[in-house]
Amino acid sequence: MKKVTEFKSLIGTDGGLSVELTPFLQKELQEPLYSQLYHWIKKEIEEGRLLPGMKMPSIRQLKTHLKVSRNTIEAAYQQLQSEGYLESVPKSGIWVAEIEKPLLHTKEVEYLNLPECKSSSNVVVDFEYGNVDLHKFPLKQWKKCLSDAMDWENNWLYEYSEKQGEFKLRREISNHLLESRGVRCSPDQILITSGTQTSVSLICRLLELQEKIVAMEEPGYSGVRSVFIDQGCYIEPVPLEKDGVSIVHIQSSAAKAVYVTPSHQFPFGMVLPISKRLRLLKWAYETGGYIIEDDYDGEFRYRGQPIPSLKSLDEEEKVIYLGTFSKSFLPSVRLSYIVLPPSLIPHYSRKFADYNQSVSPIIQRAIALFMQSGEFERHIRRMRKLYQRKHQALLKSIEQNMGTKVKIIGEKSGLHILLKLKDGSNIELIEKGLQNGVKVYSPLKFWLNPNSEGYSYIMLGFGGLSIEEIERGIQLLADCLP
Amino acid sequence: MKKVTEFKSLIGTDGGLSVELTPFLQKELQEPLYSQLYHWIKKEIEEGRLLPGMKMPSIRQLKTHLKVSRNTIEAAYQQLQSEGYLESVPKSGIWVAEIEKPLLHTKEVEYLNLPECKSSSNVVVDFEYGNVDLHKFPLKQWKKCLSDAMDWENNWLYEYSEKQGEFKLRREISNHLLESRGVRCSPDQILITSGTQTSVSLICRLLELQEKIVAMEEPGYSGVRSVFIDQGCYIEPVPLEKDGVSIVHIQSSAAKAVYVTPSHQFPFGMVLPISKRLRLLKWAYETGGYIIEDDYDGEFRYRGQPIPSLKSLDEEEKVIYLGTFSKSFLPSVRLSYIVLPPSLIPHYSRKFADYNQSVSPIIQRAIALFMQSGEFERHIRRMRKLYQRKHQALLKSIEQNMGTKVKIIGEKSGLHILLKLKDGSNIELIEKGLQNGVKVYSPLKFWLNPNSEGYSYIMLGFGGLSIEEIERGIQLLADCLP
Repeated sequence: MKKVTEFKSLIGTDGGLSVELTPFLQKELQEPLYSQLYHWIKKEIEEGRLLPGMKMPSIRQLKTHLKVSRNTIEAAYQQLQSEGYLESVPKSGIWVAEIEKPLLHTKEVEYLNLPECKSSSNVVVDFEYGNVDLHKFPLKQWKKCLSDAMDWENNWLYEYSEKQGEFKLRREISNHLLESRGVRCSPDQILITSGTQTSVSLICRLLELQEKIVAMEEPGYSGVRSVFIDQGCYIEPVPLEKDGVSIVHIQSSAAKAVYVTPSHQFPFGMVLPISKRLRLLKWAYETGGYIIEDDYDGEFRYRGQPIPSLKSLDEEEKVIYLGTFSKSFLPSVRLSYIVLPPSLIPHYSRKFADYNQSVSPIIQRAIALFMQSGEFERHIRRMRKLYQRKHQALLKSIEQNMGTKVKIIGEKSGLHILLKLKDGSNIELIEKGLQNGVKVYSPLKFWLNPNSEGYSYIMLGFGGLSIEEIERGIQLLADCLP
Repeated sequence: MKKVTEFKSLIGTDGGLSVELTPFLQKELQEPLYSQLYHWIKKEIEEGRLLPGMKMPSIRQLKTHLKVSRNTIEAAYQQLQSEGYLESVPKSGIWVAEIEKPLLHTKEVEYLNLPECKSSSNVVVDFEYGNVDLHKFPLKQWKKCLSDAMDWENNWLYEYSEKQGEFKLRREISNHLLESRGVRCSPDQILITSGTQTSVSLICRLLELQEKIVAMEEPGYSGVRSVFIDQGCYIEPVPLEKDGVSIVHIQSSAAKAVYVTPSHQFPFGMVLPISKRLRLLKWAYETGGYIIEDDYDGEFRYRGQPIPSLKSLDEEEKVIYLGTFSKSFLPSVRLSYIVLPPSLIPHYSRKFADYNQSVSPIIQRAIALFMQSGEFERHIRRMRKLYQRKHQALLKSIEQNMGTKVKIIGEKSGLHILLKLKDGSNIELIEKGLQNGVKVYSPLKFWLNPNSEGYSYIMLGFGGLSIEEIERGIQLLADCLP
């Protein structure tokens, strides 16, 4: 049992540390206290909750802890020692003894030996969406920021964060949005959240969208759709046209809010043209509806002119902008943000007065330092070039290996593409791919109402793969095409 | 303008870094592109979004970025230079020039000079609840864990966390709960969340409590009550008896779930006796209702026998246990957890399949390391002693300075106490206290239906104060009593 040794080192051998016991002793019972304690400890050992190699508290420690007499504990310990449950080691203390296996309820300790690693398989290249590049990441600088954040006047460590998030971070985000996305907002409009799903959940409650209709691209981001549904919204799926979401459809709906990904439709990748953006804004101004703009990877655009965000065109405070650090920085910081129109701030402040901020200020301050040093902008520029090279390699490799058997969808930006298959269904290709060592994904779950169309696409995320892996993966996949 | 200099250093003078522009240029318009670009940059400067001292992109950079000709950019830049908006510095680049103040819309840049510090006042001692001690905190060890966590095989950094939270952390929590709170659970039953409010919000959706009755102690923790209300639950306030929540009241209610703080009622501090715990469990078993046990500061108990948690007595999987690191470790890690009964796990897995984990795995892994090293248990023992000393000093100081003018409520554990005032209302005392340099709080918000009783208490948190501050604070407060 590997676990035993680990435990031993966990509790230490310095004599000061030992397992803490919380038996429930009742003075009013007929059974003497020592006997109650004896039975309790015996059961803990038999059922595998106290494990061989764990150190028991000293008699003195337990006396203070349980407020019972020394005699009570001595009597219980002696009985347990004589029965072989405990072992007294001179100058060391009292330990739980190794006992015969059959005594242990294996069911209860089973988990201790659970493997931690992910299921191993013969997958060589995994086109999973959502991962980012790890080779060019400025790990040293980021570690320094984390460490420096802890040194930054310490009192905040012992307190909760500001409700909207740390001011230092909100100020940096406000600067970044202006410079890179054309969004002008003050730090007071920014709310830090622990992910886009948290952002959307908050917006549902802020706009009181329960039992209201929310329009969403079909297909669209299922992670957000689940939040709307769980928050009691009715989803109006809006079909996509070649240039993005159908504005006519939104106009004819009774939606109170619309969730869109105009800079890079998820998962199809098209960019909403200016004419449609203006019509969408007009819809919002006329109906009083809100537009929730999710700009999840707006930083990574490889062809054509940069497109200003919907938010930067909004003149009547009807766009709520969502951003995230998952793509531009690291998914593992779990950090996103909302930009609220100023007119919604008083309502937010009233409605969420009782809510604590949910992102650790340690992470918030480290990122603020990372941005303040200029490292963040440098990182994005570096990553944009790197992803562009990967993206080019991916497209080239697909053209060379797959020719006319597939059509590439959404090829101008972001960290994923779709392939439309000329023949066959994605189920077959995904299965064959797995057998051949390459893992690709079905975008089927992004449809609210999946139809046969959904089976003709596969999705390839490439952020976390090297150019060599991308090329190898496409070759492996090409071999599986009919 | 201090901000300008800051910006200058942010964007660097190495010639490589400059502001990124995202003008929206339309080729189909009659107005030439250079003129569109000129007007756009001019407006950005006039309205204070491009600030004096910011470096403009080079012509070459902007040409690539905007996909327009070199001539277009040169023409726009020359016009702006001739009008004094931009300044060309040989061998350095093109910079936003210092222009006359009246041109700037001061309203839009106002926030840049917002003060960051909290409102200053003459408060000498602040008995705010929720802060923890900062002098005995093992900052060095915690920093090392944060740094070590980053070194721990790096791939996870570039991915999302496991949905329920990092396995390493869940394993440590499971060990900790068994040893210190008598709760036996496998890591598979544990869900990591970004705070108790997030935990409660998740439980509402898991148990589908919308439009259902939830019983809560009256008074009780308002932060959680707000979540229940926002999630569409109806609150049944359950009066407190001397020994905690009225079980008879719960039995006669139609509640589907009850939220309780049995180890240390919040805010009154009483401990629910075993007889009531068993009756509460019986209610759950008979009605099929769930008990949500919030054990927010169960680690800090100063008098009497340690009390096992409700969860440790639960034999029919009807108790959902909530824990947090806010009191036992640091509020700023924003880390809590739920222990679900095994029978709810499959339902959870289905219902939350689309949800990402919201706590950064950086924080999760650092805490796992901190626990694994034994440092966490040592920290709790050290803190328990320290808080006990503070607690004793607080009680003693109150007795000496206030005598029979107040009654101390909930004096056996935790990081706060209530004082019941013999005469006068808390409004008066709080105001007088503020004038005298001591800040104390009204617990009124913890009542769903505030009544005159609520005005006769004040709440004192002492976790973050030194013994000297506590004594000084009580003296200052005593002077304000009628």
